Amino acid sequence: MQIVLLGSGNVATHLGRSLKLSGIDIVQVWSRNHNHARQLADMLAAKAVKKTAEITTLADIYLIAVADDAIANVAQSIPAVNKFFVHTSGSTGLDALTPYTSEAGVLYPLQTFLKNKAVDLRQVPVAIEATTEKRLAVLRSVAERLTEKVISIDPEQRLALHLSAVFACNFTNHLYAIARQLLEQHHLSFDLLKPLISETAARVMDHSPADVQTGPAVRGDKNILARHTAFLQHEPRLQEIYEKLSQSIANLHHKAGRL
Amino acid sequence: MQIVLLGSGNVATHLGRSLKLSGIDIVQVWSRNHNHARQLADMLAAKAVKKTAEITTLADIYLIAVADDAIANVAQSIPAVNKFFVHTSGSTGLDALTPYTSEAGVLYPLQTFLKNKAVDLRQVPVAIEATTEKRLAVLRSVAERLTEKVISIDPEQRLALHLSAVFACNFTNHLYAIARQLLEQHHLSFDLLKPLISETAARVMDHSPADVQTGPAVRGDKNILARHTAFLQHEPRLQEIYEKLSQSIANLHHKAGRL
Repeated sequence: MQIVLLGSGNVATHLGRSLKLSGIDIVQVWSRNHNHARQLADMLAAKAVKKTAEITTLADIYLIAVADDAIANVAQSIPAVNKFFVHTSGSTGLDALTPYTSEAGVLYPLQTFLKNKAVDLRQVPVAIEATTEKRLAVLRSVAERLTEKVISIDPEQRLALHLSAVFACNFTNHLYAIARQLLEQHHLSFDLLKPLISETAARVMDHSPADVQTGPAVRGDKNILARHTAFLQHEPRLQEIYEKLSQSIANLHHKAGRL
Repeated sequence: MQIVLLGSGNVATHLGRSLKLSGIDIVQVWSRNHNHARQLADMLAAKAVKKTAEITTLADIYLIAVADDAIANVAQSIPAVNKFFVHTSGSTGLDALTPYTSEAGVLYPLQTFLKNKAVDLRQVPVAIEATTEKRLAVLRSVAERLTEKVISIDPEQRLALHLSAVFACNFTNHLYAIARQLLEQHHLSFDLLKPLISETAARVMDHSPADVQTGPAVRGDKNILARHTAFLQHEPRLQEIYEKLSQSIANLHHKAGRL
């Protein structure tokens, strides 16, 4: 099994490392940024190629781990004909690849990566999808070398998965950023919130989130809600987020009417 | 040091246990629900009192750990005169207590409690506030038996702290609930998101949240944002939250204009 890796960002780096560690041969690395490609290729004992024309036409998988809006462009520039092209995006369809090959797939790891922070992929779910059953089986055999948690999904499910990850990860991180900003405006350290953040995440490992909802909105405590809203009067962006999320909590928990 | 504990909910239970473990004497427990008061009193080797008239007038601290909107009522019903009344609320002022005593304080543990889940309070920040320096010193000595992290704050800071906890904890939990709902609608397990949720929380223990923001909104990926918004077309509540939070991420990261 020989893989060409296209991309050198966080996903390319983490997938490349994990594939190499699992014994899969990364033969070439290409990236728009050739210096990054060389660094990653060195790490993977692969060859960095500068021009897409130099990409081998003989690999089993062309793994395209680049920004979503660059996927089609990269696929278009690979010289191989009707080989297996695979992207790693949660929200891009197979149709970003199928104009350039009849054999397309997705390998979507459900994790958020920082370039310099090691992540143990074995506990990370990897969702796979392919144009044919045969290709899906190939992708499954690759994914199972990375993780114990491989699921085969359809395009609609992949979009739902990505969207749910945006809510649970990207938006959550933004709420942490808002909290930090509020604290610093009042000369308080973000460290104060860390035990609470850890506990809130830990709790949903063995409880349904709706069952452990706390706070003024789920209690319907209009007094506190009004106090918080007034406190944010000079921050209309935060005030609006506060109101929308409080209302959404009330709706989910079947409190009647508006807060 | 003798404490009367008023309340029998999550905060009363966890604080009561921790105070008792630290060697402080809980002499009486009162609660609107007398059965709960008895259960908690048994656990704390205290006496459960049924009527507020039976509350001793000789305790050093009357610790009022009840729902925010019940604090003033409970304070009003304590027969002791000008003794030290302390509540545990993040968003209620000392003025809920001062009509009924000149000596008032707040002991606000920055954690979210489930009744049947043990929490190690020693790592939990406890914010304190009191009407006089002398009472603040008493409260500090109590709080320092519970945790290594005692901070003295003013009323505005306490409100900021509570509000930041609502963003980082209550709202975050609601986003987990939304994610779960989206997954279940598409026959996917919430388990798929758990590694991502853990990593997202773990990451901000040693990074500023804004520095590790990921996702389509911070990348300014309008294509994905449009796809996600369309996917939520039959869920206007979620669509609105998606748009507000995405816009807020873009604003914080100084992307120009509307997404």
